[in-house]
Amino acid sequence: MSDEDGVLAANEAFYAAFRARDIAAMDALWSRTKPVAVYHPGWPGIEGREEVMDSWYRILMVGNPPDIRPLEPTVILNGSTAVVFCTEDLGDDAAIATNTFVREGAGWRLTHHQAAGLPARAASGRKGRS
Amino acid sequence: MSDEDGVLAANEAFYAAFRARDIAAMDALWSRTKPVAVYHPGWPGIEGREEVMDSWYRILMVGNPPDIRPLEPTVILNGSTAVVFCTEDLGDDAAIATNTFVREGAGWRLTHHQAAGLPARAASGRKGRS
Repeated sequence: MSDEDGVLAANEAFYAAFRARDIAAMDALWSRTKPVAVYHPGWPGIEGREEVMDSWYRILMVGNPPDIRPLEPTVILNGSTAVVFCTEDLGDDAAIATNTFVREGAGWRLTHHQAAGLPARAASGRKGRS
Repeated sequence: MSDEDGVLAANEAFYAAFRARDIAAMDALWSRTKPVAVYHPGWPGIEGREEVMDSWYRILMVGNPPDIRPLEPTVILNGSTAVVFCTEDLGDDAAIATNTFVREGAGWRLTHHQAAGLPARAASGRKGRS
């Protein structure tokens, strides 16, 4: 598997864990060797592994998370770091996300996620604008 | 200068170029060796160096950009890649931003920027929440 394919697989696994509300899978996807941070839509920034995982617990287990699917992921790869940016299809709505991964052990692990709401009309037409 | 200081200096230079509407300085801050992409608030994703720089031209030279200042930048460093996340003080409003840099030549260059609006009340209290 190429590095890009590995990163894309980790990105898919992130959204699969989200859809399945699988907090254990989500935990396994986040780095244990690097600082981690997250920007959920409308939340202030959250830093620290415990705080980040607590936020996922609140979103996935306490909240009512949407059936989220990533569209058109783009990978920016630089050595053992990769940034994936993609549109998140939330059904009627859409968001945009930046997910940062580092190579760790056998795979790629998240160090950072930022998502923000986007007008729904833009969800299906990300490329080709100037 | 440590890597972290170098990244923070590049992050400050990015916002200084923004405030000064200095499109040449902004151009110099973006990578010429890696793919680049940007998510401006409320815009769909933009990929490609020409498209990204065109978006900065429209924001800085055609638009009426805010007097933006970064608050509490946090650096996630991994080799020759760094992610900075910070709150953007826009005066009455605030945004949150993720800026990705790669080491290139003598300095650090941007490959990715995502910003999104944040409720103003949260601008001054990013840390300490669970």
